[in-house]
Amino acid sequence: MAARGRVTVNADLAKERKNANFDVETLTNFIYGGVAATERRRYLQDVAINDPVLENNKAWACMSREEQYETALRKHLHMAKRIEEMKLTEERDMFYYTETGANHENSPIGVHSSMFLPTLRKQGTEDQKRRYLPLAEKLEIIGTYAQTELGHGTFIRGLETTATYDPKSREFVLQSPTLTSMKYWPGHLGKTVNFCILMAQLYTSGKCYGMHTFLVPLRDLNTHQSLPGVELGDIGPKFGYGSNDNGYLILNNVRIPRENMLMRYSKVLEDGTYVKPPNAKISYGTMTLIRVRIVANVSRCLAQACVIAVRYSAVRRQTEVSPGGPEAQIIDYQTQQHKLFPAVAMAYAFYFTGSEIYRIYNRINSNVEQGKLDQIGDLHGLTAGLKAFSSSNCCTSIEVCRLACGGHGYSHASGIPKIYVDAIPNSTYEGENTVLYLQTARYLLKCFTKVQMGEKLPGFVSYLGTDLTVKSTLKSDVSLESLVLAYEHRAARMVKAAATNIQSLVKEGLSQQQAWNKTTQQFVWATMAHCHAYVVKTFSTKVITSNLDDETRKVMVAVCKLYAVNGILENLGDFIQDGFLSSGQVDTVTRKLTYLLDEIRPNAVALVDAFDYPDKALDSCLGRYDGDVYQALYDYAKASPLNKKDVLDSFHTYLSPVKGKVDKSFSAKL
Amino acid sequence: MAARGRVTVNADLAKERKNANFDVETLTNFIYGGVAATERRRYLQDVAINDPVLENNKAWACMSREEQYETALRKHLHMAKRIEEMKLTEERDMFYYTETGANHENSPIGVHSSMFLPTLRKQGTEDQKRRYLPLAEKLEIIGTYAQTELGHGTFIRGLETTATYDPKSREFVLQSPTLTSMKYWPGHLGKTVNFCILMAQLYTSGKCYGMHTFLVPLRDLNTHQSLPGVELGDIGPKFGYGSNDNGYLILNNVRIPRENMLMRYSKVLEDGTYVKPPNAKISYGTMTLIRVRIVANVSRCLAQACVIAVRYSAVRRQTEVSPGGPEAQIIDYQTQQHKLFPAVAMAYAFYFTGSEIYRIYNRINSNVEQGKLDQIGDLHGLTAGLKAFSSSNCCTSIEVCRLACGGHGYSHASGIPKIYVDAIPNSTYEGENTVLYLQTARYLLKCFTKVQMGEKLPGFVSYLGTDLTVKSTLKSDVSLESLVLAYEHRAARMVKAAATNIQSLVKEGLSQQQAWNKTTQQFVWATMAHCHAYVVKTFSTKVITSNLDDETRKVMVAVCKLYAVNGILENLGDFIQDGFLSSGQVDTVTRKLTYLLDEIRPNAVALVDAFDYPDKALDSCLGRYDGDVYQALYDYAKASPLNKKDVLDSFHTYLSPVKGKVDKSFSAKL
Repeated sequence: MAARGRVTVNADLAKERKNANFDVETLTNFIYGGVAATERRRYLQDVAINDPVLENNKAWACMSREEQYETALRKHLHMAKRIEEMKLTEERDMFYYTETGANHENSPIGVHSSMFLPTLRKQGTEDQKRRYLPLAEKLEIIGTYAQTELGHGTFIRGLETTATYDPKSREFVLQSPTLTSMKYWPGHLGKTVNFCILMAQLYTSGKCYGMHTFLVPLRDLNTHQSLPGVELGDIGPKFGYGSNDNGYLILNNVRIPRENMLMRYSKVLEDGTYVKPPNAKISYGTMTLIRVRIVANVSRCLAQACVIAVRYSAVRRQTEVSPGGPEAQIIDYQTQQHKLFPAVAMAYAFYFTGSEIYRIYNRINSNVEQGKLDQIGDLHGLTAGLKAFSSSNCCTSIEVCRLACGGHGYSHASGIPKIYVDAIPNSTYEGENTVLYLQTARYLLKCFTKVQMGEKLPGFVSYLGTDLTVKSTLKSDVSLESLVLAYEHRAARMVKAAATNIQSLVKEGLSQQQAWNKTTQQFVWATMAHCHAYVVKTFSTKVITSNLDDETRKVMVAVCKLYAVNGILENLGDFIQDGFLSSGQVDTVTRKLTYLLDEIRPNAVALVDAFDYPDKALDSCLGRYDGDVYQALYDYAKASPLNKKDVLDSFHTYLSPVKGKVDKSFSAKL
Repeated sequence: MAARGRVTVNADLAKERKNANFDVETLTNFIYGGVAATERRRYLQDVAINDPVLENNKAWACMSREEQYETALRKHLHMAKRIEEMKLTEERDMFYYTETGANHENSPIGVHSSMFLPTLRKQGTEDQKRRYLPLAEKLEIIGTYAQTELGHGTFIRGLETTATYDPKSREFVLQSPTLTSMKYWPGHLGKTVNFCILMAQLYTSGKCYGMHTFLVPLRDLNTHQSLPGVELGDIGPKFGYGSNDNGYLILNNVRIPRENMLMRYSKVLEDGTYVKPPNAKISYGTMTLIRVRIVANVSRCLAQACVIAVRYSAVRRQTEVSPGGPEAQIIDYQTQQHKLFPAVAMAYAFYFTGSEIYRIYNRINSNVEQGKLDQIGDLHGLTAGLKAFSSSNCCTSIEVCRLACGGHGYSHASGIPKIYVDAIPNSTYEGENTVLYLQTARYLLKCFTKVQMGEKLPGFVSYLGTDLTVKSTLKSDVSLESLVLAYEHRAARMVKAAATNIQSLVKEGLSQQQAWNKTTQQFVWATMAHCHAYVVKTFSTKVITSNLDDETRKVMVAVCKLYAVNGILENLGDFIQDGFLSSGQVDTVTRKLTYLLDEIRPNAVALVDAFDYPDKALDSCLGRYDGDVYQALYDYAKASPLNKKDVLDSFHTYLSPVKGKVDKSFSAKL
């Protein structure tokens, strides 16, 4: 990093970097997959950094929504062109480039490539792909994925938009039959796209066949004017996502040809006969991929917040430790360490987990492409809960990082509010978190029933068969193995307790559904414990099986242990309720927390440097690599649009009339 | 409430109100202090509701910062005038009026009345008050309280601005000696005020006497131009507080007369002799009052978020409970109840706590005014921790409420982001929360030492002498008394553990300071437990000593128990680590949570209605009293500034050039 043009660095930060006892570059390579991968990443970052077209002409937070939209449109279209010119085809390459060029400045065409194109490729027939893909790839067709409605989100079966097949004209008639059926929220729907993939209830031959997908033109491809029968627009300002024209759409008797239904799996024949897909789950593939991506994406958001907060905490000095002595770096305070270091550990934990489940997704997905569908349920069970667990935990920690920056964290100058409002919708979109926890809970309940019947389970849930009478063997070294076992014990016990509870409610005479409704909160807790165990185990395996040098490995072990130890203390009741951890072991774990904070302290800045985010991506006065935070805050203040004039017009309009004229002689004496 | 002009109400909401088993009006009166107080409150709310000057001409979130500033300035100046015309003098009256007129639309003159005037009244001499108060009360002088600097916030001793007395000219010379010494953050400092009360290090006769307060003119009282030697401006956009011109200020050799030091307590005589105040703590009074107010204020923010989320959860239906059946109100889901009802309980808990400590503040403060200073330390110990505990917990719960509204919670249409960004700075300003926890921790440590020596303690810490060997007597009824005792046991045990830990570290040879630094996180946890116990006890006492009718009392008991039971389950380790609660008692408490959610369910809407917030204050499509949320969301969308044109100019500027022209014949076939 130091080689990338930064010269003068704040003395405290320079000292931190000098005193780290591992090689940052080694860790960066470990995170991003090797020397070549890091070099490639940096090359693409630098392309973005050095491109004047990707500069903003003012701070993001100073722009109106219209300006944010225009800026993002300009930048993302430019990047799309550059991606083509550079012939980038790897998803990762495009991501690194755009992340640096417009971080948390959401693309007004992002859903086109993240959902519209993949769905077309996955669910379109060869004919459809031949016809539409070339146009879509050249942005002549720009599309979104219109699922969510005003009255329905995650519960897809409840969606109300209808597509009724008319065999006479061989067309589908699209209709928004109620107020609540209007599409609401799809990205870029309001102003940008000219097409959408519409999720609608399919009616043919007088019968409803449930949700299917349709290619629907919304605007004229040349004039961009909205088409007859199509009412659409932007849904208005949100907490974040200012550059995204999330839209609403009302369809009034809009007709599309039969060929516009995506018919790779389900079909409607010319005469209206419905042909069902080979596997009902097959069409949910796009959503699963997005959920998989979310795990790594929210960890990246958290990592960026950590870079900002940790660097600033090394620069900021506050309160002398002994009277009259120098003020301490706030990173030296135990309470500050306890806010930030577990957040850093969490960023690592979810990043490695995200990479791992992406690997799993690709493996299972290629089986699915070859017609092997038996692991779809496992994949869904794995990813639904992890999407919820990662987004919820990472976002909470981003706010912790922001608050750890004190007052300046509240200024947009810190850069963290921009990250938070961009990350937090991950808790809601692509499946609301509680709903997803409960989907994984149902999967765990099924798994538990299999365990009871002695069946073998896939690797990541095999621990459910653990002998719960065994007590922890955790010793003063607090080994990674003992921590993994503790998490697996906790999860196995909680899943068993929830499953036993529902089973006994059913025995008492409640229906399965009634019993479920009375135990959902318990199942949510159990599922969180399951996800927690998966993350601890994945992180731990990643560290144990690595071929890192001793120093780097040592610091990674400490970080992994901190993630696990902190989680135990935050959920202590779960671990001691059945006596699994003894009171002596609790003392050991509590002491270990303090030791780990001390151990990580000298490496804290190096640990966040290793995430390798350039200043352009961080867009933060507090997180600058050179630590020159106070001058940056002063510059940020001076650039405030309110400072264009010394005396604002509103003084004359509003303040001056209510003020009495003050006696000149009094004024002069002040 | 129904009498206030609402006619058609969503059927689900109407049913909820009909089915509540207590009288909402009774509870409203209980919250706000009786029938007359409620009537007064509603009268003032209606004055604001019916005043066309207090309408916004567009949604707050659609305004630029300049527009937010101007709108707030216009409205708050108008309200200041109306307050004078209506002769409102009670703080509460003014609050109810302005809260309705411009809720979470921060006043650009608020600090003038909340800190500038009170400090002038409290710390000014009779001469100063005579000279400045009449001008300040007529807004000829508008002032702020300039404490925080770019490099220093809560740590007041570290502030760098200097005021050096020059006996020759009988003036103070004010100076910002470093970059980090510029004032940064004071409210309205950038553009609005013409005066400030400046906190600066006092130097006289060659010696520094620490922080003192000075009246400093910043802008010409007539032209409003900034004065020579004064560089100031707005600090730029923040997470929220858009209408507040938080400012920066650099003083370069600015001279003010000796008489501009606030000299009621400390003095500098003409010859430069320093006269110290009778009690060093006396000048911190203003800050303590603000901290006291924060407890009730953040509870109000949470209450508003609860009104929105609970009403919306009654209106919103999602997912059939049994296949093919009607979709359930989401408030019927246990997981939704578990998000919202503890938040409602928390809002009540902190509101009553805020009222109670306000009462205590007034009692102690009137003693202080009469020269009895012995309870200042207790007051500080009580309020510092509670400010931190209330703001941190309420803000977390506001986000829980927002997320419980699903996707629509993310839209500014929900009204909750506006509440969150307005509430969250309470965690940082008027003392950063961790710093405040540690101030109360030091107080608790002192108290514990007194207990060890057999001294008597004030009421709210007397439980520290509890016999820790006694186990809980909590039974299946889970009485309020047993819950209070559980919290007091937990807090007493944790304070003792932290105090014992630091004492033994000192015995091992560490300095007091070193030992403190190694135990701060433990002390933070102990202080949270202490505050939690205080809140549970205060809420419980309020309910037990009330003269409510049986039905209302029953529901209040359930709400109070839910607050306590949920807190036990969230911190279970603390309560069972030493065997205080047995495993059977934990099962009892866990079951009780489910029972309480069931018990509160029919009263949920009534419980939030009782907070008595009119729609104008909530400013939310989801929280409307009439429940017409979907039409409101559609209207909100249509009003988006991006919808002024069907095709945005940016289509022609950016999108059109990169799109190939699509073959007309293809386009026609779509």
